[in-house]
Amino acid sequence: MTADDPLEGIAELDLDRGRRRGGYPEAVFCEGKSPEQVLAIARRYAARGEQTTEPVLFTRADEAHARAVLEALPEALHDEQARLLAWPPEPPAAVGELVVVACAGTSDLPVACEAWLTARYLGREAELVVDIGIAGLHRTLARLDLLRSAGCIVVAAGMDGALPGLVAGLVGAPVIAVPTSVGYGAAFNGLAPLLTMLNACAPGVAVVNIDNGYGAGHLAAQITAPR
Amino acid sequence: MTADDPLEGIAELDLDRGRRRGGYPEAVFCEGKSPEQVLAIARRYAARGEQTTEPVLFTRADEAHARAVLEALPEALHDEQARLLAWPPEPPAAVGELVVVACAGTSDLPVACEAWLTARYLGREAELVVDIGIAGLHRTLARLDLLRSAGCIVVAAGMDGALPGLVAGLVGAPVIAVPTSVGYGAAFNGLAPLLTMLNACAPGVAVVNIDNGYGAGHLAAQITAPR
Amino acid sequence: MTADDPLEGIAELDLDRGRRRGGYPEAVFCEGKSPEQVLAIARRYAARGEQTTEPVLFTRADEAHARAVLEALPEALHDEQARLLAWPPEPPAAVGELVVVACAGTSDLPVACEAWLTARYLGREAELVVDIGIAGLHRTLARLDLLRSAGCIVVAAGMDGALPGLVAGLVGAPVIAVPTSVGYGAAFNGLAPLLTMLNACAPGVAVVNIDNGYGAGHLAAQITAPR
Amino acid sequence: MTADDPLEGIAELDLDRGRRRGGYPEAVFCEGKSPEQVLAIARRYAARGEQTTEPVLFTRADEAHARAVLEALPEALHDEQARLLAWPPEPPAAVGELVVVACAGTSDLPVACEAWLTARYLGREAELVVDIGIAGLHRTLARLDLLRSAGCIVVAAGMDGALPGLVAGLVGAPVIAVPTSVGYGAAFNGLAPLLTMLNACAPGVAVVNIDNGYGAGHLAAQITAPR
Amino acid sequence: MTADDPLEGIAELDLDRGRRRGGYPEAVFCEGKSPEQVLAIARRYAARGEQTTEPVLFTRADEAHARAVLEALPEALHDEQARLLAWPPEPPAAVGELVVVACAGTSDLPVACEAWLTARYLGREAELVVDIGIAGLHRTLARLDLLRSAGCIVVAAGMDGALPGLVAGLVGAPVIAVPTSVGYGAAFNGLAPLLTMLNACAPGVAVVNIDNGYGAGHLAAQITAPR
Amino acid sequence: MTADDPLEGIAELDLDRGRRRGGYPEAVFCEGKSPEQVLAIARRYAARGEQTTEPVLFTRADEAHARAVLEALPEALHDEQARLLAWPPEPPAAVGELVVVACAGTSDLPVACEAWLTARYLGREAELVVDIGIAGLHRTLARLDLLRSAGCIVVAAGMDGALPGLVAGLVGAPVIAVPTSVGYGAAFNGLAPLLTMLNACAPGVAVVNIDNGYGAGHLAAQITAPR
Amino acid sequence: MTADDPLEGIAELDLDRGRRRGGYPEAVFCEGKSPEQVLAIARRYAARGEQTTEPVLFTRADEAHARAVLEALPEALHDEQARLLAWPPEPPAAVGELVVVACAGTSDLPVACEAWLTARYLGREAELVVDIGIAGLHRTLARLDLLRSAGCIVVAAGMDGALPGLVAGLVGAPVIAVPTSVGYGAAFNGLAPLLTMLNACAPGVAVVNIDNGYGAGHLAAQITAPR
Amino acid sequence: MTADDPLEGIAELDLDRGRRRGGYPEAVFCEGKSPEQVLAIARRYAARGEQTTEPVLFTRADEAHARAVLEALPEALHDEQARLLAWPPEPPAAVGELVVVACAGTSDLPVACEAWLTARYLGREAELVVDIGIAGLHRTLARLDLLRSAGCIVVAAGMDGALPGLVAGLVGAPVIAVPTSVGYGAAFNGLAPLLTMLNACAPGVAVVNIDNGYGAGHLAAQITAPR
Repeated sequence: MTADDPLEGIAELDLDRGRRRGGYPEAVFCEGKSPEQVLAIARRYAARGEQTTEPVLFTRADEAHARAVLEALPEALHDEQARLLAWPPEPPAAVGELVVVACAGTSDLPVACEAWLTARYLGREAELVVDIGIAGLHRTLARLDLLRSAGCIVVAAGMDGALPGLVAGLVGAPVIAVPTSVGYGAAFNGLAPLLTMLNACAPGVAVVNIDNGYGAGHLAAQITAPR
Repeated sequence: MTADDPLEGIAELDLDRGRRRGGYPEAVFCEGKSPEQVLAIARRYAARGEQTTEPVLFTRADEAHARAVLEALPEALHDEQARLLAWPPEPPAAVGELVVVACAGTSDLPVACEAWLTARYLGREAELVVDIGIAGLHRTLARLDLLRSAGCIVVAAGMDGALPGLVAGLVGAPVIAVPTSVGYGAAFNGLAPLLTMLNACAPGVAVVNIDNGYGAGHLAAQITAPR
Repeated sequence: MTADDPLEGIAELDLDRGRRRGGYPEAVFCEGKSPEQVLAIARRYAARGEQTTEPVLFTRADEAHARAVLEALPEALHDEQARLLAWPPEPPAAVGELVVVACAGTSDLPVACEAWLTARYLGREAELVVDIGIAGLHRTLARLDLLRSAGCIVVAAGMDGALPGLVAGLVGAPVIAVPTSVGYGAAFNGLAPLLTMLNACAPGVAVVNIDNGYGAGHLAAQITAPR
Repeated sequence: MTADDPLEGIAELDLDRGRRRGGYPEAVFCEGKSPEQVLAIARRYAARGEQTTEPVLFTRADEAHARAVLEALPEALHDEQARLLAWPPEPPAAVGELVVVACAGTSDLPVACEAWLTARYLGREAELVVDIGIAGLHRTLARLDLLRSAGCIVVAAGMDGALPGLVAGLVGAPVIAVPTSVGYGAAFNGLAPLLTMLNACAPGVAVVNIDNGYGAGHLAAQITAPR
Repeated sequence: MTADDPLEGIAELDLDRGRRRGGYPEAVFCEGKSPEQVLAIARRYAARGEQTTEPVLFTRADEAHARAVLEALPEALHDEQARLLAWPPEPPAAVGELVVVACAGTSDLPVACEAWLTARYLGREAELVVDIGIAGLHRTLARLDLLRSAGCIVVAAGMDGALPGLVAGLVGAPVIAVPTSVGYGAAFNGLAPLLTMLNACAPGVAVVNIDNGYGAGHLAAQITAPR
Repeated sequence: MTADDPLEGIAELDLDRGRRRGGYPEAVFCEGKSPEQVLAIARRYAARGEQTTEPVLFTRADEAHARAVLEALPEALHDEQARLLAWPPEPPAAVGELVVVACAGTSDLPVACEAWLTARYLGREAELVVDIGIAGLHRTLARLDLLRSAGCIVVAAGMDGALPGLVAGLVGAPVIAVPTSVGYGAAFNGLAPLLTMLNACAPGVAVVNIDNGYGAGHLAAQITAPR
Repeated sequence: MTADDPLEGIAELDLDRGRRRGGYPEAVFCEGKSPEQVLAIARRYAARGEQTTEPVLFTRADEAHARAVLEALPEALHDEQARLLAWPPEPPAAVGELVVVACAGTSDLPVACEAWLTARYLGREAELVVDIGIAGLHRTLARLDLLRSAGCIVVAAGMDGALPGLVAGLVGAPVIAVPTSVGYGAAFNGLAPLLTMLNACAPGVAVVNIDNGYGAGHLAAQITAPR
Repeated sequence: MTADDPLEGIAELDLDRGRRRGGYPEAVFCEGKSPEQVLAIARRYAARGEQTTEPVLFTRADEAHARAVLEALPEALHDEQARLLAWPPEPPAAVGELVVVACAGTSDLPVACEAWLTARYLGREAELVVDIGIAGLHRTLARLDLLRSAGCIVVAAGMDGALPGLVAGLVGAPVIAVPTSVGYGAAFNGLAPLLTMLNACAPGVAVVNIDNGYGAGHLAAQITAPR
C-alpha cells in the first residue's frame, strides 16, 4: 500500500471475492466500525466505478453509517428498517428459484427485510410474507401455496421461535431459520428461539445467528442459485 | 415422637394435608430417598388403615423404591413407565371437568403418563393423547374436538417444545406445559423446550419444571376441580 | 388486501380471535413495534366501532406507544405503571371466580398491576394485595382468608422468588407465578426467581415468563372462567 | 385403531409423509424409545411390504435398538459407527448434485457417517472426506477441488468448530455445519463449536443441532435435489 | 522430605494449621484422591499419636476412602450418610453457642449431617432438625423456639432453596445457607437453590457452595466460638 | 388503612421488625422504587419521631432517591459513594466485636463502603482497609494484625475474586465475601468472583449476592453482636 | 500515610513493582475509577519525576479519564482508539524478540492496538497486522513470513474467534489469543470466540480475557523478553 | 493411499509436522477414538522406525488405549496418572529454560503430570511442585526461589483457581494457567477456575482449556525454547 491509501491500517478489501467464491459479492458489516472507516470503505467501492456491476451491501448500518455510505455512494438504496444500503441501487435481474421470507411477528420485520433484500440483491426473486406466527395457525395455512412454491424459505421468529419447525413440516424445500432478539425475559435476547430452532422436530431446518438476516438471505440465494 | 418411631430423624409426614389445602393428598417424592426411607414412609401410610380413603402417590420411584412401597402396601398400583405407585389402587370416582394429557413424541410418554395418572388419582376424568407433535400438524388437528372438550390440557414435549403453544392457539382452556428432557445436544436436558414454553406466543400457557408430570397433573386437577 | 390498507405489510389482525378461542380477546404487544405501527393497529380497532364490545389491550406500551393508541382511541384507559391501555375503558361485568394478584415487593407492582388489570378486563373480579413477601411472614399470614377465597392466585416476585411456593402451600387454588426482573447481581434479570418458581416444593405452582403480567392475568381469567 | 394394533398408545406412523412433503421419507429416532417400541414400529414398516420402495431410516440406534430393527427387518443395513439402520438396504439411485461430507477429526466420524449415509439413502451421490481440520491447513487445501464440485457440503467438527467457516470462505456452495460433542472441558459437550459455527465470519454457513448428522444429511439432500 | 516419606510427591500436610488459624483443624477432602493417597495421609495422622487431641475430619469419603482411613485409624468414627470420618472418634467437649442445622427435606439429610457433625467435632453443641420445608409452614413455625435459641443456624435445602430466607426472617442469628443438589430438571444440580439463597429477601443469609455441608458446619463453629 | 394513608397500595412498613428479629432495623431498598414511593416511605419514618432511636437505612439510592429521602429526613447522612442514606445521622454507640471491611481494588470501594457503613449503623466498630488485592501480596500481609483482630471480616472483590480465600487462610474469624461487578469480559458482571468465592479452598468463607454490601455488613454485625 | 496524602483511602500504589517482578511496570486500570481518583493517581506518578524512567500505562481510559491523566501528565501519549495513555510518551528502546499483533477484523482494532502499544511500551519491537480473518484465507497466508519471524504472536478476534487456531497451526511461536466482544447474537459479547480459542485444535494457543489487549501485550512482552 | 493402508478412512497423519512448525512433534488425542483406531495410528509410528527420533505422545489414553499403543510400541513409556504414553521412552536431552509445573492440590496431580511430562518430552528441563494452594500461603512462599528460576510456570488448579494469579504476582515469567475439573457444586466441572484465571488481577496469566495439561506443557516448551 502506498502512504496515502485511505484504508491503510484499517481494512483490506476483497474486491474480487465475488469471482473467487462464485458470484456472491462482499458485504460490509458496519456495526463496530466508525463512520469514518465506513466512509473510507465506501469510497473505495465508488472508485471501482464502471469496472463491475456487482453489488455491494452495507449491513447493520446505523444513521451515521448510512450518511457515510451515502456521502460516497449518493445513489445507493437505503432501507432504514433493514439497516441496509445497496449499491448500485438496482438489484440484478432475478434468476434461479423463488426465495420466500416469512416473518412471525411485526417486530421481526427488520430482520426479515434484511434477508429479503439480501436475497433480492444477490439475484433472486424474493417474496416477503408478514405475520404468520404459530399462535394463529390459520394465517400460516393460508399461505401454504406460496410457501410450497419456494426453492428455499427463510423464517424469522423471536420469542418461542416455533414457526420454522411448523413450516418445515409442511413443505419440501429447505428452511433457513433466523432467531430474532424480539421478546423479553426468558427469551434471553434470542437464545430461546435459537435453541428452539436447533431442536426443531421436523428435518429440513438450518439455523443462522440471532438477527442474522443477511446470512439467511445469502444462504437462501446460494441454495436457489441457477445450476 | 417416641423413640421407636420408624420415621424418627427421617421425615415428618403431613397426613392431614389433604384437609388443610382442600382435598389434594400428599405425594412422596422417592428420588434421593433410600429404599429404607421409602419403606418406613409407606408403612406409616399402611398403618393409617381405614381412617381415610385419600390416595397417596409415590413418584419418581425406581425399582428398589417400588419394591419397598409394595412391601408395605402390596396392593398398590405400580405403573413402571410413569415410575409411579398409587394406593389405594383404585382411583377415586371422577368429578369436575375433563383433563386431556397430550404428548408430542413416544419418548415423552413417561412424563405424560405421570401427569395422566396423577390427574386421575386426584379425582378427574383424564384422557391421554399420543404423538401429536408439531412436525405432523395433521395429527394435532385431527384431535381438535377432544382438545376443545377439556377443562385443562397438559402438553408434554421435549426437543423444540413447540406443541403447547400450538395447542394454546387452538383452544380456550388453560394449557399446562411440561418440558421433557427428551432430546440431545442443544436441547440441554430440557432447557430448550422449557424456554420455548415460557416464550409461547399464544397466551394461556403455564409451565412446570422439566419432566414434572406429577406437578402438571396436580395443577390440571386443581384447575378442573368441581366448584 | 387493497393497496391503501394501512396495515399492508405490517400485520394481520385477528379480529375474531375472541370467538374462535372462546372469549379471550387479542392483545397488542407494543414493545418492538414503532409508534406508527401501533397507531395503524389502534386505528383498525377504532374502525371496528359498534360491531363488538370485546376489549382490546395494548401491553408493554411506552409513552410514545401510549400517545399513538390515545390518538386513535382517545377514551382508552391508560395505566402508566402497568404500561397498559385498554379499550373500551370500562372493564366488562365480572363473572366467574375471584382472581387475587399478590405482590412480593413494591418494585413488583408494575407486573402485578398488569396481571390485575388483564384479569379485570377479561371479565373477572380481581383483587390486588401488596407487599406480602416471605421475609415478613406475618404479612402473608394476615391475608390468608383473602388468598383462600380466590379461584386462582397470581403471585409476582423478584429476587428469591419464594413467595409463590409459600402461598401454594397454604391454599388449594392453583397459583400462577410470575418471576420479575426486580433484583440485582445473581438475580440475573429474573432468572433466579424463575428457577425458584419452577422448583417450588409445593405442588400447584405454574410459571409464566419473566415480567409477563399479561400472561399471568390471562391464565388466571381462563382458570376462573364461569363454566 | 383396532384393539390389537401393536402401536396402540405408542405412536402414530406417518407412512405417506414422503408424498406429502415431496419425497423425503420418515426416520425413526430410536433414542428414548424402548427396544419393544422400536420393534413394534419396525414391524409396521415390514408390513408395508411391496407397497413402496421408499426407504426408512432408524437413527441413534444402540445395540438393543438395532437387534429390534433387525428382528423385524432382517435385511436392513446396519452401520454401527453411524448408529443407523436403513431399509431397504440398497440406497436409491443417485440423482441431483453431489453432497460432500467433511470431517475435522477421527472422533467426528460417527456424526459425519450419519450425515453421509442419510444423504445417500435420500438419493444423492455423496462423498466422505476424513480429517481435514483447521490445524493442518494443507490437508484442507488438498481437497479443494472435491469441495468445489459439491452442490452442498456438510462439515462436522467438534472442539473449536472452525472448519465450516474456513470451508465456506473457499467455496460457493452452501455449507451445513454440524457441531459435535467431541472435545472436553470448555467444549461443553458441543456448545463451543455450536457457537463458533453460528458466528462464522464467512457467509454461507447454516447450523444444525449438536451431533445431528441425520439433520445435516437431510438438509444436504434437500438442497441438492434435482429440480 | 526424606526419600521414604510416604507423602513424597503427594501432599504436604498442615499439621499445625489449627494453631496458626486459631483452633480449627484440617479436613482431608477425599473426593478426587485415590484410596492409596488417603491411606498415606491417614497414616500420617495416626503417627501423630499422643502429640495432639485435635480432631481431623475426612470428608466426601466413598466406601474405598473409608476403608483406607479405617485401616490407618481403626477407631475413627464413620458416618456413612454424611460420608465423613472423624478421629479421634469422640467429639471435643462443647463450648460456645448452640448450632442448629435445619434440613428442608429427607433427601437433604446427607448434607445436613455433614454440617452437623462438623460443627460438633469443631467443638460446638449442635442440633439437627429434620424436614421443615417451606411447603409445610406449620412445621417450621413449630420449631421456632429452638431456632431462636441458636447462635447460628445452618439451613440445607435443594429444589427451590427457599427455607433459609424464611428462617432468616424469623430469627436474629446469622443463617448459613447450603444449597443441595437435590432436585431435578430446572434445579440444575443445585444452581436453582444457590441463586435463591444469594437473592434471599431477608438479610442475614450467607451462602456456601452446593452440597458443602462441611463448609457450613465450619463457618457455624467459627461464628459461635467462645470469645 | 384509611383512604388518606400515603402508603396505601404501595408498601406495608415493618416498623417493629427490629424488636421481632432482635435488634436489626429495616432497610429500604430504593432501586426499582420511584422517588415518590421512597418519599412516602421516608415520611413515614419521619413521623415516627421520638418514639425510637433505631436507625433506618436507605440503600441503592440514586440521586433522585436521595433527594426524596432528604426532603423528608433533611438531617439524614448521605454517602454518595455507597449510595446509602442513614437516619438518624449519628451511628449508635459501638458494641460487640470489631468488623473489618477489606477491599481488593479502588473500583470495589462503593460496595465496601456500603458494608462498612451498614456495620457501623448497626452498632459495630468497623474499619475499612483499601486495596489489598492478591496481585500485591505484600499489601495483604502488611495488614495481617488488623485482620486478625476482627470478629468478622468482610472482603469485597471483583474480577478474579481471590482475596477472600487468601484472607480466610490467614485468620480464624469468619469471612463474608462480597463479589462485585467490577471487571469486564469473562467477569460476567460478577459471576466470576461469585464462583471463585463459592469455591474458596479455605474454609470459613460465606458468600452474599454480587454487589450486596448491605447484606455483608448486616451479617458481619450479626456475627459480631455482643452476647 | 500522612493526613494530606491525596490517595488516602483510595489506593496504595506499587511504585517499585517493576523491580520486584523483574521489569514490568504497573498499569492503572481506569474503568470503574472516577476521574478524580485517576487524577490523584496520575499526580503521584508525576511526583516521581526523575527518579525513574519506567513507563506507566493508563488503560481503558474514557475521555474523562484521559483528561485527568493529561492534567497531571500533559506530555503523556494518548491513543484514543486503544483507550490507552502512556507516560513518558517515548517508548523504551526495543529489546528481545519481535511481537506481531494480528487482527481479524477492523472492529477488533481497538483491542489489537492496546496489545500492540503495551508490548511496545514494555520494550519490544512490535508489528500490527490488520484484517487477516479466516474467511479470507489468502490474506493470512500472504503474511506468513512476518508471522513466522515473531517470537510471540498476539491474535485478536471476535465472532467465531477462529483465527488464532489457524495461525498456531502455521507457526512455531506461542500464540496469545484475545477474544473480543465484536459480534452480535450468539457471539454473546465475546463468549463465543473465548470458547473457540480455549478449544483450539492446534497446540500453542493461550487465552486471555475478552477484550484484554493489555494482558495479551504484557504476556507477549514477557515471552519475548531478552534472556 | 493404497487399498490396504490401515489408516484408510480413519486419519491422515502429519508425520513431518515437527519440521513444518519448527520442532514440536504431533500428539495423538486418544479420547473419542476406538482402541482399534489408536492401534492403527501407533503402528504407523512404529513403522517410521529409524527415520526419526522425534517423540510422539498419546494423550488422554484410557486403559484400552494404552494396551493398543503398547501392542504397537511395546517400549513406550506409560504414565497412568497422566494418562499419557510417550515413544521413544527416553525424553530428549533438555535444552532451553526451566519449566516449573505447580499444582494446587493432590487431586490436580493428573493434569499437572500431563503438563510436566509434555514439557519434558518436548525437550525442556521440568520440575513438578506439589500442593502449594492459596489456602496455605506459607507453602507457596517457601517455593518462591524455584518459581523465580523458571522461564515459564504452569499452574494447575481446580475449585477457586486462585493460585495462578497469586504466583503471577510474585514472578516475572509468564504463567500458563490450567483450570482443572477438580471440585464440586459451583465449580461446574472447571468453569469456576477457568473464569477465575481469565480474570486474574495480576498480568502475566494465559489460560488453556480445562484439564488441558498437554496444551499447557506444549506452550511452556514453546516459551522456553532455546533461541
